[in-house]
Amino acid sequence: MFKKILYPTDFSECAQAAIPYIKTMKKAGTKELVILHVIDIRQSTIIDTTAFGETFIYPYDISDILKKEAESQMKTLIKQFSRIFHVTPLIVEGIPFKEIIHAAKLHKVSCIVMSSHGKSNIEEMLLGSVTEKVVRKSPVPCLVIKRA
Amino acid sequence: MFKKILYPTDFSECAQAAIPYIKTMKKAGTKELVILHVIDIRQSTIIDTTAFGETFIYPYDISDILKKEAESQMKTLIKQFSRIFHVTPLIVEGIPFKEIIHAAKLHKVSCIVMSSHGKSNIEEMLLGSVTEKVVRKSPVPCLVIKRA
Repeated sequence: MFKKILYPTDFSECAQAAIPYIKTMKKAGTKELVILHVIDIRQSTIIDTTAFGETFIYPYDISDILKKEAESQMKTLIKQFSRIFHVTPLIVEGIPFKEIIHAAKLHKVSCIVMSSHGKSNIEEMLLGSVTEKVVRKSPVPCLVIKRA
Repeated sequence: MFKKILYPTDFSECAQAAIPYIKTMKKAGTKELVILHVIDIRQSTIIDTTAFGETFIYPYDISDILKKEAESQMKTLIKQFSRIFHVTPLIVEGIPFKEIIHAAKLHKVSCIVMSSHGKSNIEEMLLGSVTEKVVRKSPVPCLVIKRA
């Protein structure tokens, strides 16, 4: 019932709130953990207006930088979980909520465990937009961990 | 972490989908279960236009009927769970999502487990309105079980 968990994370402090809950799920039968980080393609290009003396707009692809950063953060997570679960780490590029639903189906997970908010933790928002879309569209149960 | 669970239910088939998951949570440390049924005060009065030969509009309070029906359904649920958990059954009148949040705080539960849809299971709606509001406003983690 909770055998294989998908943990989508943007590595933010909010996203980390789910970690102790995931560890506790072991007792409820969790054996496998898919950790997913999605590099948002809408944010992987920055516009550098200074590159040519502010005359030209120069789109600058930072996806390689983001990927390296993600790999380093993922390593830390793998260390935390690999003693407890069989871990499958995934770093993909795309639209976060779409990739999360896609991964849930592709890897046939039994449950998604995620925090209510990610990096863009706007106080007024009671539920982050990615989490809201995932809960709506998920084919499997979702455990939403609220921010402190 | 999952010691005391709140299970809000309208006794519908969709709401029952959460039951096996709640039972599994025992292994994750769940000891107490608060089962909550909210009689929606907005639906506890029906308008009977036939009472006086269709001349008068006669508001008819059915909350006593609904309460009796709820008590009977609650008994069935208590039987299912009382061998596994310490069960606190609650039947209250009010606006469902507000009473659910109120009960979560009052009974200091550690988690809410509920189905994505209730009685008004509209196929087009990816998430029921009560569940959506509960996930937004809950002070504790929410496990949302999707309809089959």
